[in-house]
Amino acid sequence: MNYKDIIEKVYNETKEISNEGKIATYIPELANVDPTMFGVHMTNLKGEGFGIGDNLVKFSIQSIAKVLSLTLAYKIMGEKIWKRVDVEPSGTKFDSLLLLEIFNGIPRNPFVNSGAIVICDILVSHLGNAKEEFLDFVRDVSNLPNLTYSDKIADSEKAHGYRNVALCNFIKSLGNIENDPTEVLDFYFDMCSLEMNCQQLSYTFTYLANGGLKISDGSKIITKPQSKRINALMLTCGFYDESGEFAFKVGLPGKSGVGGGIVAVCPHSYTIAVWSPLLNPNGNSFKGMKFLEEFTTHSDFTIF
Amino acid sequence: MNYKDIIEKVYNETKEISNEGKIATYIPELANVDPTMFGVHMTNLKGEGFGIGDNLVKFSIQSIAKVLSLTLAYKIMGEKIWKRVDVEPSGTKFDSLLLLEIFNGIPRNPFVNSGAIVICDILVSHLGNAKEEFLDFVRDVSNLPNLTYSDKIADSEKAHGYRNVALCNFIKSLGNIENDPTEVLDFYFDMCSLEMNCQQLSYTFTYLANGGLKISDGSKIITKPQSKRINALMLTCGFYDESGEFAFKVGLPGKSGVGGGIVAVCPHSYTIAVWSPLLNPNGNSFKGMKFLEEFTTHSDFTIF
Amino acid sequence: MNYKDIIEKVYNETKEISNEGKIATYIPELANVDPTMFGVHMTNLKGEGFGIGDNLVKFSIQSIAKVLSLTLAYKIMGEKIWKRVDVEPSGTKFDSLLLLEIFNGIPRNPFVNSGAIVICDILVSHLGNAKEEFLDFVRDVSNLPNLTYSDKIADSEKAHGYRNVALCNFIKSLGNIENDPTEVLDFYFDMCSLEMNCQQLSYTFTYLANGGLKISDGSKIITKPQSKRINALMLTCGFYDESGEFAFKVGLPGKSGVGGGIVAVCPHSYTIAVWSPLLNPNGNSFKGMKFLEEFTTHSDFTIF
Amino acid sequence: MNYKDIIEKVYNETKEISNEGKIATYIPELANVDPTMFGVHMTNLKGEGFGIGDNLVKFSIQSIAKVLSLTLAYKIMGEKIWKRVDVEPSGTKFDSLLLLEIFNGIPRNPFVNSGAIVICDILVSHLGNAKEEFLDFVRDVSNLPNLTYSDKIADSEKAHGYRNVALCNFIKSLGNIENDPTEVLDFYFDMCSLEMNCQQLSYTFTYLANGGLKISDGSKIITKPQSKRINALMLTCGFYDESGEFAFKVGLPGKSGVGGGIVAVCPHSYTIAVWSPLLNPNGNSFKGMKFLEEFTTHSDFTIF
Repeated sequence: MNYKDIIEKVYNETKEISNEGKIATYIPELANVDPTMFGVHMTNLKGEGFGIGDNLVKFSIQSIAKVLSLTLAYKIMGEKIWKRVDVEPSGTKFDSLLLLEIFNGIPRNPFVNSGAIVICDILVSHLGNAKEEFLDFVRDVSNLPNLTYSDKIADSEKAHGYRNVALCNFIKSLGNIENDPTEVLDFYFDMCSLEMNCQQLSYTFTYLANGGLKISDGSKIITKPQSKRINALMLTCGFYDESGEFAFKVGLPGKSGVGGGIVAVCPHSYTIAVWSPLLNPNGNSFKGMKFLEEFTTHSDFTIF
Repeated sequence: MNYKDIIEKVYNETKEISNEGKIATYIPELANVDPTMFGVHMTNLKGEGFGIGDNLVKFSIQSIAKVLSLTLAYKIMGEKIWKRVDVEPSGTKFDSLLLLEIFNGIPRNPFVNSGAIVICDILVSHLGNAKEEFLDFVRDVSNLPNLTYSDKIADSEKAHGYRNVALCNFIKSLGNIENDPTEVLDFYFDMCSLEMNCQQLSYTFTYLANGGLKISDGSKIITKPQSKRINALMLTCGFYDESGEFAFKVGLPGKSGVGGGIVAVCPHSYTIAVWSPLLNPNGNSFKGMKFLEEFTTHSDFTIF
Repeated sequence: MNYKDIIEKVYNETKEISNEGKIATYIPELANVDPTMFGVHMTNLKGEGFGIGDNLVKFSIQSIAKVLSLTLAYKIMGEKIWKRVDVEPSGTKFDSLLLLEIFNGIPRNPFVNSGAIVICDILVSHLGNAKEEFLDFVRDVSNLPNLTYSDKIADSEKAHGYRNVALCNFIKSLGNIENDPTEVLDFYFDMCSLEMNCQQLSYTFTYLANGGLKISDGSKIITKPQSKRINALMLTCGFYDESGEFAFKVGLPGKSGVGGGIVAVCPHSYTIAVWSPLLNPNGNSFKGMKFLEEFTTHSDFTIF
Repeated sequence: MNYKDIIEKVYNETKEISNEGKIATYIPELANVDPTMFGVHMTNLKGEGFGIGDNLVKFSIQSIAKVLSLTLAYKIMGEKIWKRVDVEPSGTKFDSLLLLEIFNGIPRNPFVNSGAIVICDILVSHLGNAKEEFLDFVRDVSNLPNLTYSDKIADSEKAHGYRNVALCNFIKSLGNIENDPTEVLDFYFDMCSLEMNCQQLSYTFTYLANGGLKISDGSKIITKPQSKRINALMLTCGFYDESGEFAFKVGLPGKSGVGGGIVAVCPHSYTIAVWSPLLNPNGNSFKGMKFLEEFTTHSDFTIF
């Protein structure tokens, strides 16, 4: 079977299974989404794509944006960035604050919330206007010149993000935040409020399947070794408490968001984005995980 | 450059750098090894190999054997094995016992000591004579009919392995060990006492680069999906506290042992074994890590 | 020897020993105090006192005020207060955030920072103007009608109290803070900024040696059982990580503050306040601890 | 009311309340006890006693014996003993193993299992025959020349004490056990198997209410400061996870055992022993705790 047939088959099978997931509730605005949405889009390195279902409906990409902010900060600071954040899986949620204390405010990796907040602090320090310049960067990477933040989503998070306020101030007290916590958090919540559809999302991530180069014009976003390392990080740390499970069952670098989106990267080959809003107990899209597991099990589209 | 030239170049460069590692001291018998030993051997899927340095000197493979015991237990129990042990990275040593308690005696993965002990318990339950039948299995996989346990190493560990005695009894008290702790530990220490040289070790692991099949005769050791999953586990959990770092810098599934050996697997392509006894602070071979990092950075031999 | 002679003797001996303590640095304003200050004052239940050294110099009582805020909240809520905060020692600083998560936002006791913040939240909920009404309460208990908060100290803490901002927002995210974190913290920092001298401090705490009654007029501040229970809490939880050490070496209920003050209570008998600004590694006054240890070892003024 | 009337009244009231406790199950032999047993005995410093209910029925004192082994080890080593074990409350069961690792094998206090095992190690090191000499010591303190260990109880624990085997080997691996773990544990299980009735138990502990001296002949068991310090330790650490609760509600130094016994000490005044086998969720006698809380609330027999 070619990849279109496999996607269609697995999409239809996954559509049928009973959805045991639940809507994310900690950001009230996210609860307004239609829970039956389900879309998939794959893009290869020639820019050819194949989509199915609600693949053209926009959704909040949330934590998936952390890969883009990491890319920009890594591009700016180079390897020095790893003095501010580590590259290790975080174990479980039980230890996150404990580990921050033991490791003197150095987050375990850039994809846990504490790590993404430190990355935001780096961008605030290095850019004149982090919010605008980050948006310009994502517009360029995604070829979406009109992309904007969602104020509704950002405001909803700002009003309820006590846990992130706690994290940022805790790291500040341990010496690993340079700027005012309020400013850093403001940018963090904006960054997480970006919206894309599956087609746009899979297209945006093609630079990570293409050695750091944009597939449209071959221009360099990051170096090839940097691109490999971001893929390695997505594989080991991209799925909260379920990172091992994803590597184990899906076998691809990827990143999920509480909006129900997942993007996965098969180096030298393709990217794929899935969206279904209801989440499993670990905060990853229930149907998204099922789809990707079936998709890679019935194909050779994995790295192992 | 072809792979032989790259290996030779990186080997010679790595040989020159000052070795900051230290000998493993917690198993007295291991301290008797010559600290200057340094060998590398690569094997491709046709069985062709290339070795350099002390690649034909035998050493204690220690924790590397955990991949082989997992393979046998997985072959016997199938997916039910994951009810006894999880597939998540363990975070850090700081939390291992805490996490065992929180997760009711289910170890985080089969490569931390607690997980490997549970795998030994599974083999003791399912095999008439675990010690003998496991040895037969490894002899078959490695095409080494005369392979034996090292009583010297095993006895040295048995006399000083208080931490492992503690782990096994702790898991027993939490209900996830079926047999007598003394019997399980006895097998565990034997299992870790196997000795191979770099050539044998890289050859033994070729089934994981070959979809679960022996390269010599194509016979099935495990299924293709099982093979992919063991590779995923090695990538996320194979290097103690440094698993993320290895995936990040080397970009290959692999497993290290305190004897100073490391084996890495490039699916569909090759395996490579490195040995140098002095260890970095995380318990992985200092020069072995340096060699593999350089080797994959200067080549396309990675999965990312 | 009578108590005056013992106090004089131990004071003079303790004055001579080399002070290994360090000034508290996390609140910049506290660093401006004269580090050689050393005062002691004892008050018996007739209101008779005996002081020595710098016993009439005012200092920032800091965490000692947590006993007074607990007293007021306990008076208001009665035993229902223990649904919001527990009565157990906290073990060590290593676990404080971990334990908050495991126990769903219920702090281990009212004297760790998290517990004192929850007590402030209770007072903000129950009082029209917590800041004013708490000050009125302390003025009444201490017979000091002109007592005020120190804006300098409070402002200095507000500008650097990231750790407490983290704690309050973390508990809010776990559901155990009712009010806006900013408002609760504002009151918390004011509360900790009260200033007294040793004479005033020992006098203020006499109600806890007197079964909850003011010694000046016999009026009831809290009930006798409540008074006993606050004493028990000071004994088990009053000295951060050193609570066991204080009970062990001094044998009295007591409370310390990072301003270098300590107050101790001998039920049915007396109270004693000590002040010396330099702190030991656990954050308790170096000379204060030494004085009290010697004082109770050479007398029968303990509860054991 | 005099103390006899109070004991009688509180005993009868407590007898009536529904017992929500459960039998200890982790030592099978303990499960054979009659769950309706309920006895109380008080002894004053003249040796006069008053008992009620099943106060003359023998039971397994279990962890209460840890006070006696500590007394003997303290007598032998003096203050040097605190280099091997600390004097701090342990927080909660969740952190016990974590804290052992963080504090390099130094248990938090001598009453958690890890601490009591280290005390046993000390006695094995200092005595020719720890088992016999400890028994002689307890016979002398208790004036019970025929006291013996219960082999049935000890054997039952030895066959199921995996958690304690784990603890002892873990501490050995951290360097704070001098002898062979098997020998230390053997003594530990014997030590916990002592049996007494309430009358004997309260009599045995009178030396701690009497400044370290036997009340029968005034001979010195330990010094007065040592006696005060053991009382302080019982107050802060005597009741597992409920130590704070006991200090808070009862207000006396005391020690409980999983056999359902509790002994409490009112310095300069009396001792009291209670026994009822069913345990609350924290492992302390359900009715024993209720009785002591009521007894001290309705009397002035507390230290606060």
